[in-house]
Amino acid sequence: MGNLTEPTKYQRGLAKIREAHGESGVATVEALNDIAPALAQFIAEFAYADVISRPGLDMKTREMATVATLVALGNAAPQLKIHIHCALNVGCTHQEIIELMVHMAVYAGFPAALNGIAAARDVFNENRSNTGAG
Amino acid sequence: MGNLTEPTKYQRGLAKIREAHGESGVATVEALNDIAPALAQFIAEFAYADVISRPGLDMKTREMATVATLVALGNAAPQLKIHIHCALNVGCTHQEIIELMVHMAVYAGFPAALNGIAAARDVFNENRSNTGAG
Amino acid sequence: MGNLTEPTKYQRGLAKIREAHGESGVATVEALNDIAPALAQFIAEFAYADVISRPGLDMKTREMATVATLVALGNAAPQLKIHIHCALNVGCTHQEIIELMVHMAVYAGFPAALNGIAAARDVFNENRSNTGAG
Amino acid sequence: MGNLTEPTKYQRGLAKIREAHGESGVATVEALNDIAPALAQFIAEFAYADVISRPGLDMKTREMATVATLVALGNAAPQLKIHIHCALNVGCTHQEIIELMVHMAVYAGFPAALNGIAAARDVFNENRSNTGAG
Amino acid sequence: MGNLTEPTKYQRGLAKIREAHGESGVATVEALNDIAPALAQFIAEFAYADVISRPGLDMKTREMATVATLVALGNAAPQLKIHIHCALNVGCTHQEIIELMVHMAVYAGFPAALNGIAAARDVFNENRSNTGAG
Amino acid sequence: MGNLTEPTKYQRGLAKIREAHGESGVATVEALNDIAPALAQFIAEFAYADVISRPGLDMKTREMATVATLVALGNAAPQLKIHIHCALNVGCTHQEIIELMVHMAVYAGFPAALNGIAAARDVFNENRSNTGAG
Repeated sequence: MGNLTEPTKYQRGLAKIREAHGESGVATVEALNDIAPALAQFIAEFAYADVISRPGLDMKTREMATVATLVALGNAAPQLKIHIHCALNVGCTHQEIIELMVHMAVYAGFPAALNGIAAARDVFNENRSNTGAG
Repeated sequence: MGNLTEPTKYQRGLAKIREAHGESGVATVEALNDIAPALAQFIAEFAYADVISRPGLDMKTREMATVATLVALGNAAPQLKIHIHCALNVGCTHQEIIELMVHMAVYAGFPAALNGIAAARDVFNENRSNTGAG
Repeated sequence: MGNLTEPTKYQRGLAKIREAHGESGVATVEALNDIAPALAQFIAEFAYADVISRPGLDMKTREMATVATLVALGNAAPQLKIHIHCALNVGCTHQEIIELMVHMAVYAGFPAALNGIAAARDVFNENRSNTGAG
Repeated sequence: MGNLTEPTKYQRGLAKIREAHGESGVATVEALNDIAPALAQFIAEFAYADVISRPGLDMKTREMATVATLVALGNAAPQLKIHIHCALNVGCTHQEIIELMVHMAVYAGFPAALNGIAAARDVFNENRSNTGAG
Repeated sequence: MGNLTEPTKYQRGLAKIREAHGESGVATVEALNDIAPALAQFIAEFAYADVISRPGLDMKTREMATVATLVALGNAAPQLKIHIHCALNVGCTHQEIIELMVHMAVYAGFPAALNGIAAARDVFNENRSNTGAG
Repeated sequence: MGNLTEPTKYQRGLAKIREAHGESGVATVEALNDIAPALAQFIAEFAYADVISRPGLDMKTREMATVATLVALGNAAPQLKIHIHCALNVGCTHQEIIELMVHMAVYAGFPAALNGIAAARDVFNENRSNTGAG
């Protein structure tokens, strides 16, 4: 793909996924290609190139809203951890994520908040291991 | 209540409710006093004085997360409209709220997003009527 | 149906529905017979004759659990009001029902609790109108 | 738009919406253009042109699954009625829709099934009025 | 049980479970008999003999609707895998199940669809191991 | 803390947690202090000292309603087990808990009931191991 070529929409979606989730996010989506290539395509093209790249909301607000949604739905534990990680990537602090989980107790109840904290603790610990911090 | 008196926690909660929702929010909570005074107390003291007044998240982020939660849960139509109104009060723009609803299509599905847009349309129209704009 | 005849399971289910919900409950179930007779049958035979008639839980505990479930699910406003009415029929007090809604704020969040209170208020008012009380 | 022109993806989406929901479906989506044009675009382009037009599932199965989903989620009453209407449009019978609602009692509980039947009854009655039948 | 004897309703339920889920399904239900025999009875008699044996919907449509419901509810991961397996047993193809999961992204959001794909991948792999394929 | 000192609200909350859940419940809440001390505080002060200590509902009814809520929401498996354990602590019998799970099949569907039974089985087995019974 030469430097004169416009990237395809799929490529623009993967670039946005890379910005939000790092290479592991790209790998997760591309791993869908053996079983559900349409889902890989729609995640890249619709979710990331079409929606999440829109300028109307900054990435921090998008990720805080996404984490709130996943805590509230409570049906997607792996995605919750992926989006807590992403929220950190796009500039949210540990304190803001913890504060969001406390806030969720009011609107979705304490069990949802506790599951949110447990997921945050896992993500913070994984990041600490990966950076050699203690 | 003289100027030497600290406001009670309940009063601090009502003040936060007034800041977020205006006088109608205070009236809604106080209307609970005839049937469930404990709920009025806990909304003012726990939800607003204890949690929502905490400094770790600005009110705009809190309200965007709350609106996302209510769209995702889909079980609280009156509260959804109250919090869209509140989001506007604390500085979110119409465009940001619409953008959030579009974002929700990715994480909670299109029916949830469509219900979110319908609620936003109602709130925007009510505000327009109240200000005499057309 | 002579006095020597055992009631059918459907009749036993209707009798349990009458005990729990009064004649209006029976009418609601029988009104399903024009569109979904199988559902009327399963409500009477499975839900009421088979499950809700079982001796292992008293009716008050069953109805408190049912009201909690409907508040938590948030997807069945008409059934919520029917079961608040039923809870009163089987001996729960107004105070116990209000207390349950306050309790729900902890586990399902304040919006769910507020919807529960609103439903309870409607049912208490309907009962007051029906008895001529003011 | 001359007869030599390929329809745009948005036009292909609207054509699929017309096939599934009739002109009223197209009008519902286009009514979003004043408040959330991106949502109108994504419903037409992603939901209908990209996903629902895919050949891997026939429209009857897609609509039965959609109705089941909306009954289970319980958070989208208007969309539930729209998709019951659509299910009839693409060839499902009244009996199949009723049967699906009875089936839902097993997996999502009787309150969800009862709300499904109530929505089906409304849609069947609306269709009967529209065709002059009694 | 001689050949002149009508099977009991419980036996008819187990036979339907065997048809849908194989011997492992029968074993799963009978394993409930030590802790909750009433639940084993109601699964066999109500869910399978009464509802799922009804002629108004073919088994393929019932299972597609059940899988959609379980993906949407997101609260029953073991049952989701059991019903994906069952859908294959009653004649759904791998492609139809994948297509259903993609369809779910529109109505229940991408996290639900991704969890559906993960469950389908597990079931497809288990089947492949069991048949010695690689 | 001398015998002339009133316990703080936090201490009263911990005492209620100890009564309901034993020392392991206190440890679980205090383990939140490193990551989310505000959540530990609100669980002790709001959930347990303010709400769950209220006299309007006995602890057995509170726990039966809480277990029903957690089965219905289906999004908090660890809390479900904690509250089944608590229900036993405050005097519910094994039979009442099983009966509640069967009851849930009617209102939240069989998959929710089956998950409830699986959680109950785990808790009953853990208790049996802890007491040396077989």
